[in-house]
Amino acid sequence: MKVLVIGGDGYCGWATALYLSSRGHEVAIIDSLVRRHWDNELGVSTLTPIAPIQKRIDRWQGVSGKKIGLHVGDITNYDFLSSVFRQVEPGAVVHFGEQRSAPFSMIDREHAVATQVNNVVGTLNVLYAIRNDFPDCHLVKLGTMGEYGTPNIDIEEGYITIEHNGRKDTLPYPKQPGSFYHLSKVHDSHNIHFACKIWGVRATDLNQGVVYGVLTEETGSDEYLINRLDYDGVFGTALNRFCIQAAVGHPLTVYGKGGQTRAFLDIRDTVRCVEIAINNPADAGEFRVFNQFTELFSIIDLAHMVQKAGQTMGIKVEINNLENPRVELEEHYFNAKNTSLLSLGLQPHLLSDALLDSLLNFAVKYRDRIDQSQILPKVSWRR
Amino acid sequence: MKVLVIGGDGYCGWATALYLSSRGHEVAIIDSLVRRHWDNELGVSTLTPIAPIQKRIDRWQGVSGKKIGLHVGDITNYDFLSSVFRQVEPGAVVHFGEQRSAPFSMIDREHAVATQVNNVVGTLNVLYAIRNDFPDCHLVKLGTMGEYGTPNIDIEEGYITIEHNGRKDTLPYPKQPGSFYHLSKVHDSHNIHFACKIWGVRATDLNQGVVYGVLTEETGSDEYLINRLDYDGVFGTALNRFCIQAAVGHPLTVYGKGGQTRAFLDIRDTVRCVEIAINNPADAGEFRVFNQFTELFSIIDLAHMVQKAGQTMGIKVEINNLENPRVELEEHYFNAKNTSLLSLGLQPHLLSDALLDSLLNFAVKYRDRIDQSQILPKVSWRR
Repeated sequence: MKVLVIGGDGYCGWATALYLSSRGHEVAIIDSLVRRHWDNELGVSTLTPIAPIQKRIDRWQGVSGKKIGLHVGDITNYDFLSSVFRQVEPGAVVHFGEQRSAPFSMIDREHAVATQVNNVVGTLNVLYAIRNDFPDCHLVKLGTMGEYGTPNIDIEEGYITIEHNGRKDTLPYPKQPGSFYHLSKVHDSHNIHFACKIWGVRATDLNQGVVYGVLTEETGSDEYLINRLDYDGVFGTALNRFCIQAAVGHPLTVYGKGGQTRAFLDIRDTVRCVEIAINNPADAGEFRVFNQFTELFSIIDLAHMVQKAGQTMGIKVEINNLENPRVELEEHYFNAKNTSLLSLGLQPHLLSDALLDSLLNFAVKYRDRIDQSQILPKVSWRR
Repeated sequence: MKVLVIGGDGYCGWATALYLSSRGHEVAIIDSLVRRHWDNELGVSTLTPIAPIQKRIDRWQGVSGKKIGLHVGDITNYDFLSSVFRQVEPGAVVHFGEQRSAPFSMIDREHAVATQVNNVVGTLNVLYAIRNDFPDCHLVKLGTMGEYGTPNIDIEEGYITIEHNGRKDTLPYPKQPGSFYHLSKVHDSHNIHFACKIWGVRATDLNQGVVYGVLTEETGSDEYLINRLDYDGVFGTALNRFCIQAAVGHPLTVYGKGGQTRAFLDIRDTVRCVEIAINNPADAGEFRVFNQFTELFSIIDLAHMVQKAGQTMGIKVEINNLENPRVELEEHYFNAKNTSLLSLGLQPHLLSDALLDSLLNFAVKYRDRIDQSQILPKVSWRR
């Protein structure tokens, strides 16, 4: 199938583009490269030295014999987006092309507004491009488990059946997102749902958990294909950040008590979930929601697992409970469903000491590149 | 109290500004005047000849002896908004300053994007202006009953208590808005809720029904204070539009079967509801939701009421069931709660033949100004 991967130069996007290409799909990437620009602006950098996108794609062709199309530009520019759609004629579009950091969106008013405008307008443009020219194209959109917040009831996949005053309906699951970034994804979900209803668009919203790991079969096959790995206080997510902190002897930065439970998955499962979604498209007019994660952990549990894995490697790992820069519950109920992708064939890579070892080893390999001044959180939700 | 009315030159905003001023509040208006510009762009016009905002405010001072401050500018410009906040030092801000037409937002991609960016960014800016300089200022934000859609269960005021798998929580009421405009209000509600949670902002979201009527005590006290009255296919809302259509012998434009049930209120209740909200501010950190309407009617019921009122005035009124330009259910359950404002003292003006007479008489008075070519809907939800 012809697949357009928006945001194909990013962490999840790059791994997905290569995986889909290796599985025989005809892949084209759209990316504005703004993620690299934000690294420059913030003075941070991926742990792993990533090659320019053009070089990455050339090398992939050398390694695999497969071509990936490249379109550098911003999807908030509709004329650009529309012209790429017409060149690529996609059967599916995988949309990773959003500002994806909660702390980035909380830096200040400008970053909050930029995040919401970028994400909402980009997604609206994708919806119009589909409606206008490729009404049968399946939109696979990256959402986040963070859209749900931490309700005191079980989290279903996108919808919940409510009985109320003797009547019953199945309605969109109530959303309680925890940052202006997470809010932008909630806005997207509502907009996409509406487009499915009025235009018959087929869409799958992948409410993804926190992704960890750096190697997939494809990105690990050549040094030039290596994926990015972020550890800084803005773009670094929990488990990846902990492993890198452990590798350089920096105490693990647990925010508050660490009782925050979140949903996680291996990046090798991210790419597989996207493939499953593409191979099993939503019906015309259907807004389908999959919760895309494999396991639930509390943050303090993760920290202890890294500590234990470190011990077996002879690395002493300390844990620091920092004052929580976010406003969030640190002890709460959290139980989310994830049966849809499993029933479509996902076979999870579960988090294990072995994986922690591999991530830790990776971090050790590149530890000379770590800038310790970037590790602590600098963005507060309160001020 | 010092009250800042954003969108104070609009239909609800102007009536509210005068009412609050007459009740002794110190009122300042912010308005970009873009609503008048959109009339020009679309080639439509209010039935009633409205004076320039500067003249309106001068005349109000002549009639009442009370001054209203005027700040012409766009709240998506944060520097402008922030400087007005610092001049006015508001204890409450009433935010009507959004693009408020569903058909306008459905004209094309550009109008959808413009509506969402304008509304979302404006409201984000208001939230930051409150947080940065006036953390105790009460935000009274105009939402819409259309945020809820038409669920098959009773509509509560903003939240619903859900029992699920043996556990219970009170969560934001699920939203199913029916246009990119209504979606923008849902986005706003989520953003405001979050700001209350993390910054302790006090906010009241007024989920308002369809407003009808043109006269309030203040806007009726002088020809120069007259309020706008829209009847065109883009900005005209159901009952007002029907009365004006009846006055010129145009068949009433009922979309589809007309079984769509909606919530309604008299503009004299709009201004009173805002006053009630201001006089009973939300607590710090509270995101309070009031459903602001007084009665429920189906569209076809309204049409029949106008037809009957017309008969008593000797006007023959036809009803046309047009092909519905919108995508919406034409027969559905609809039962919404509205007890909060009533319990705080709202005494509703109920829709009656008398009111229909008055609206009809008003329409007859200005019928020479009607451009019949603007009456039919021109915007389709499907294409």
